[in-house]
Amino acid sequence: MNQRLTQLSNWLSEQNIDFAFVQTKANVFYLSGFYSEPHERLIGIFVFPNGEPVMVCPNMEKPQAKAAGWEYDIVSYSDSDNYWELIKNYLNKKGQGGQKIAIEEEHISYLRANALNKIYNEAKFVSVEEKLNSLRLIKDDQELALLKQAAELADFGVEVGVNAIKSGKTEMDILALIEYELKRKGIREMSFSTMVLTGAKTADPHGNPGITEINRGDFVLFDLGVVLDGYCSDITRTVAFQEINDEQRRIYETVLSAQNAAFSICKVGTRVGDIDKAARNYITEAGYGDYFPHRIGHGLGIDVHEFPSMSENNDDLLQEGAVFTVEPGIYVPNVGGVRIEDDIVITKDGFESLTKYPKGLTIV
Amino acid sequence: MNQRLTQLSNWLSEQNIDFAFVQTKANVFYLSGFYSEPHERLIGIFVFPNGEPVMVCPNMEKPQAKAAGWEYDIVSYSDSDNYWELIKNYLNKKGQGGQKIAIEEEHISYLRANALNKIYNEAKFVSVEEKLNSLRLIKDDQELALLKQAAELADFGVEVGVNAIKSGKTEMDILALIEYELKRKGIREMSFSTMVLTGAKTADPHGNPGITEINRGDFVLFDLGVVLDGYCSDITRTVAFQEINDEQRRIYETVLSAQNAAFSICKVGTRVGDIDKAARNYITEAGYGDYFPHRIGHGLGIDVHEFPSMSENNDDLLQEGAVFTVEPGIYVPNVGGVRIEDDIVITKDGFESLTKYPKGLTIV
Repeated sequence: MNQRLTQLSNWLSEQNIDFAFVQTKANVFYLSGFYSEPHERLIGIFVFPNGEPVMVCPNMEKPQAKAAGWEYDIVSYSDSDNYWELIKNYLNKKGQGGQKIAIEEEHISYLRANALNKIYNEAKFVSVEEKLNSLRLIKDDQELALLKQAAELADFGVEVGVNAIKSGKTEMDILALIEYELKRKGIREMSFSTMVLTGAKTADPHGNPGITEINRGDFVLFDLGVVLDGYCSDITRTVAFQEINDEQRRIYETVLSAQNAAFSICKVGTRVGDIDKAARNYITEAGYGDYFPHRIGHGLGIDVHEFPSMSENNDDLLQEGAVFTVEPGIYVPNVGGVRIEDDIVITKDGFESLTKYPKGLTIV
Repeated sequence: MNQRLTQLSNWLSEQNIDFAFVQTKANVFYLSGFYSEPHERLIGIFVFPNGEPVMVCPNMEKPQAKAAGWEYDIVSYSDSDNYWELIKNYLNKKGQGGQKIAIEEEHISYLRANALNKIYNEAKFVSVEEKLNSLRLIKDDQELALLKQAAELADFGVEVGVNAIKSGKTEMDILALIEYELKRKGIREMSFSTMVLTGAKTADPHGNPGITEINRGDFVLFDLGVVLDGYCSDITRTVAFQEINDEQRRIYETVLSAQNAAFSICKVGTRVGDIDKAARNYITEAGYGDYFPHRIGHGLGIDVHEFPSMSENNDDLLQEGAVFTVEPGIYVPNVGGVRIEDDIVITKDGFESLTKYPKGLTIV
């Protein structure tokens, strides 16, 4: 078994859990290398404390699962099959017990949990999500290579966007061009809905791009990322159009310095919450504490938002190989908003930024 | 209360259900007009057999919910609140019983169902999904107007794609241009991952676009749609590049005639499964029965795939106001694939096609 399956299997053994059942696209991909969006169909993996795992998937996906490297049993089904019957038969034949079952409690439907519960009456469910989150937290070399490539493409997206800024262009014009150039490079999916915001909209951290034209003196904020071979990137840059006033300049410099304050403690052993605190203290001392309404960042990998949540109350300690975003922001109504976001990895000696697009205040 | 809430409330009353809890983006939008992607946060609506409903949402979403027209109670929470406690207090204060609770069994997480079960020990869960599916099935005038506009934009997308076909262009070049032009018109989201496939790839109904260049004699297949104000479109057209051989021509004409065979019975009262059967019989008689591996279509509305599933074994009868896709296809390895898909609405007198891009065999 690959290292990930082995680690999960060992954990089940330690915890006296009969088996784990995993069925989110991200965790199936993590454990098997098989990346497939099943929509309403089921693709899942049963992992046991002893012996080999088994995958459940539609007949038509079986060749792709094998091509992705799955070398264990597959219970496959057609649209007219009841796959819970097939699963039950498989587990029964194996003589598999199920008094304590680990499931993705936050991401399995009531219907599926209930079907599992019918196979093993009175099963006790426990969560497998914390364990998988902690495994996924530490990226291996292959994952880091993909995350770096995804970050380079995010840099490129910002470059396209900054170069496209011109009088008369709208947010959607620029957004469309960024995605056009990325798609021509073969990127099929952005990691989330691309944001290009200008002027007053930059002051809303959840603003929606529209057909608003850019005006002199506006901030233009880009927040975007791509999915590359299953791994995500996520970058934010903010530039000024034609001119900038003193308060806008002060906001920009404050956000950039706050990010540097956060970076200065990004190393193995730092308490996660202290990274948020470092940026937040800097912004608060500069008088903008009320205008930084969100956490400093989030883990990044197969999901664009994954474990850990980089919030002030997170007591975990940073480990080598963790990848996350650092994205302070200040949003002042009627003045504008600035956010600067990079993806970083914790290394033996400190950290490395995966996104590299320049951050000096730029007036286009 | 709006008609949708009233219909659901009446159903709860008829079924002796204590209340319904709805928390998917699509059903919340359907019942409230509030369209918001809550990610891991909870946005939900409790509907009762008597009295007014209540919404649960994050504090920061409350203004948007009201702006969308929600005029009833809102239980709102901050990220540090335990919203299940707030919900429990609200329901207790109201003196609300909960022996029989209707939930979205297929789309609520085990964790959430379990939290609800803790408030009402030994609650019996029933599904609210069939009821909501059947309500959502019949589109009102406002929904039809949006679906028509979304379909027009899908037509436009195909037009952009067909006009972009040229030697040396890749699938992703053309895909990127289609989305570019749609996004410039203000479309933020495609209704699914756009497909532009050429040559051998057209023979795979789930093919992935890539940086394959178009070659003389290839089919080029477009499958795309947009989300407009919460409503989806979905169109497929297939054209030939520079030349076409006899078998390709026969396949194209067979698919087009099969679609017409399906259309010929699209009217109030037709058994849904017969629509699939009409197209399938035509294709089978033409000798291509083994090469039409999917159902004839699917319902379309807030979700790009919604109720009903237009498959052969569906015994429901068509009703006025139902909107669905009709999309026969033939996929022959080493020859190529053709799919032709339109979005139609069942009217008093028959049906109307919402997508209107021409379907005569086109050689670009």
